[in-house]
Amino acid sequence: MSDYSGRIARLQAAMQAEGIALTLLAGTDQMRYLTGWREGGHERFVGLFVPAAGDPAFVVPKMNAPQACETPAGIAQVFGWEDHTGWQDDVEPLLKGWGIGKDSTILVDDELLSIHLLNLQALCPGTAFKPAGDIMASLRQIKTEAELAAMQRAADMIDAIYEESLGWLREGITELEFHELILAAIKREGSRPSFPPLICFGANAALPHHHTGAATLKKGDVVIIDIGCIWENYASDITRTVAFGEPGDPDAKHVYRVVSAAHLAARGFGRPGVSGEATDATARKVIIDAGYGDYFVHRTGHGIGLSTHEPPYIVQGNAEPLQSGMCFSVEPGIYLPGRFGVRIENIVTVTPDGIRSLDADAPTELRIVPVV
Amino acid sequence: MSDYSGRIARLQAAMQAEGIALTLLAGTDQMRYLTGWREGGHERFVGLFVPAAGDPAFVVPKMNAPQACETPAGIAQVFGWEDHTGWQDDVEPLLKGWGIGKDSTILVDDELLSIHLLNLQALCPGTAFKPAGDIMASLRQIKTEAELAAMQRAADMIDAIYEESLGWLREGITELEFHELILAAIKREGSRPSFPPLICFGANAALPHHHTGAATLKKGDVVIIDIGCIWENYASDITRTVAFGEPGDPDAKHVYRVVSAAHLAARGFGRPGVSGEATDATARKVIIDAGYGDYFVHRTGHGIGLSTHEPPYIVQGNAEPLQSGMCFSVEPGIYLPGRFGVRIENIVTVTPDGIRSLDADAPTELRIVPVV
Repeated sequence: MSDYSGRIARLQAAMQAEGIALTLLAGTDQMRYLTGWREGGHERFVGLFVPAAGDPAFVVPKMNAPQACETPAGIAQVFGWEDHTGWQDDVEPLLKGWGIGKDSTILVDDELLSIHLLNLQALCPGTAFKPAGDIMASLRQIKTEAELAAMQRAADMIDAIYEESLGWLREGITELEFHELILAAIKREGSRPSFPPLICFGANAALPHHHTGAATLKKGDVVIIDIGCIWENYASDITRTVAFGEPGDPDAKHVYRVVSAAHLAARGFGRPGVSGEATDATARKVIIDAGYGDYFVHRTGHGIGLSTHEPPYIVQGNAEPLQSGMCFSVEPGIYLPGRFGVRIENIVTVTPDGIRSLDADAPTELRIVPVV
Repeated sequence: MSDYSGRIARLQAAMQAEGIALTLLAGTDQMRYLTGWREGGHERFVGLFVPAAGDPAFVVPKMNAPQACETPAGIAQVFGWEDHTGWQDDVEPLLKGWGIGKDSTILVDDELLSIHLLNLQALCPGTAFKPAGDIMASLRQIKTEAELAAMQRAADMIDAIYEESLGWLREGITELEFHELILAAIKREGSRPSFPPLICFGANAALPHHHTGAATLKKGDVVIIDIGCIWENYASDITRTVAFGEPGDPDAKHVYRVVSAAHLAARGFGRPGVSGEATDATARKVIIDAGYGDYFVHRTGHGIGLSTHEPPYIVQGNAEPLQSGMCFSVEPGIYLPGRFGVRIENIVTVTPDGIRSLDADAPTELRIVPVV
């Protein structure tokens, strides 16, 4: 997985094809993809500048310069800026050397902080700035065998932890306590979470991005468990919905069946050449036809790899055709405010003839976890 | 600590004084300060728009709209955008209603992701965009009594955990194992870390932002422990340097004395009316005079409060006078590559007649932790 110079060369070839003069990556997964190193830098500027031709350059806080010098990408130009001077003094001569002017276009990492973009824009008045997301996606979204192997391992790991976790559900446990048990299991496996475990009991399951909290588990609650972990920097991400004892809400089993059907419909539809939005529409149609269209309030899925959320997005508006080797989540959901929610999420990869799930299949009927 | 409408009114007054038409806060601590709620949104746009006059508006993913409706700030205008439409459709009429045009200036949260800023700039061609950091700092950097009380509690908590942690140092323990013990202690106290504990053994202590890893503790190692926790959303942050047994490097005790003297010099100098950069220079002069100027590779300190790093920065270039009620770190350090490093960090607050430390004093001589 460490063909870093090849990755940089492919980025430069794509930049030349599109007439891009310079790409700036922040200390994000984009930088990790190109160099094997990421460093948020807190509020400090961490940048990898890749010109259309020639050698890239790191501009990083002086205290991170030793790390930038030692990345597996072996980038020789490392500028360590100091707190009292700022980074602009290092960047200005670089821009000049690369011939950046009013006619140039610079791509910037989607996740670069605005304070840094505003300062960079002030250095290059008139230069066009555009997001680097699309060009980086063109490099990253089709996974190699080695990347797929890491993702499969992360998927197997989180599937096993999920199965184990059902034994920890008992009356009165809080969402946070359950969350802590998940974290401990992920660490025990030598992994780390790909995002904070999202645990929703009862009516909290109706909030897709609920903040895991102090709610206690009660008999009859619907439970959403949305968890993932990392293997060799690659992420897994699954969501399972179960009931703790017979569900208190009379519609829970039916809604589960609808979501399961939507999930499987998208998986049956996806293949090379169909679009992300058509895949989204396939899942959505099942939910709309069942009368719950207003309660499926998010896209069907997101790409995944080094980042837990990355292109391709399985959403209306993404007309790009799926390609073999792409990986993404399939995660339709129905959320009934004040009552409960259901979401079923697997990570899948596109194969030449369809879709293969990296995760074990969720049951097609709501699983009842016995109350002990 | 919950005078949210007063905070928004003070922001609007400052905006009017500076001729700012609109301020956009992302789902960061800036939003938390103004509304009591923060939500990163992952890659999705989460924004609080505050016009110079009139009611603010939340524009958030539809799945977060219920949370935005329930913040203690009681903001009535909440627009929930959907994945298939994007957020621009909600923002465009708002901008029109607020009269944003070519002569307007919009302030944007320093931490807003560039992808969102680029999209917003495309909506308002010609409009000037500037960072919101300074105006928000003018509201946030002088702490109230209630804020100081929360910070004191966070400081007391981390001081106690540090003292306890020294008992966990033993030959062969890894940085990561020690890090995990710190995390467990912070959780046990009902708190959460303000940043991942930074633990450096031996030569790793020469990297100010080393990534805590698999290094094992050896007799004679210098150890840097940089840890903090949160109480009522307010942060603490201390760094202590100790030796595990008599230090192997003959200069460790001397370098510690230099850093201690620099730390105390800055604390003795700071008071209302002197600048952040003069305070930095005071610490730095002690280190330069001792011949280690090239090895103090960062600023003397950062402000702290709801965010672990926030204004005021104690750095050359910050000529703003300190004011009573400001809080910041004093953390000079010396880093000798391949050998060891020393950093001593306390959080302090400015009082009418000088500086008061929220944390207990570090010893002025290198503390030797007995090898057991």
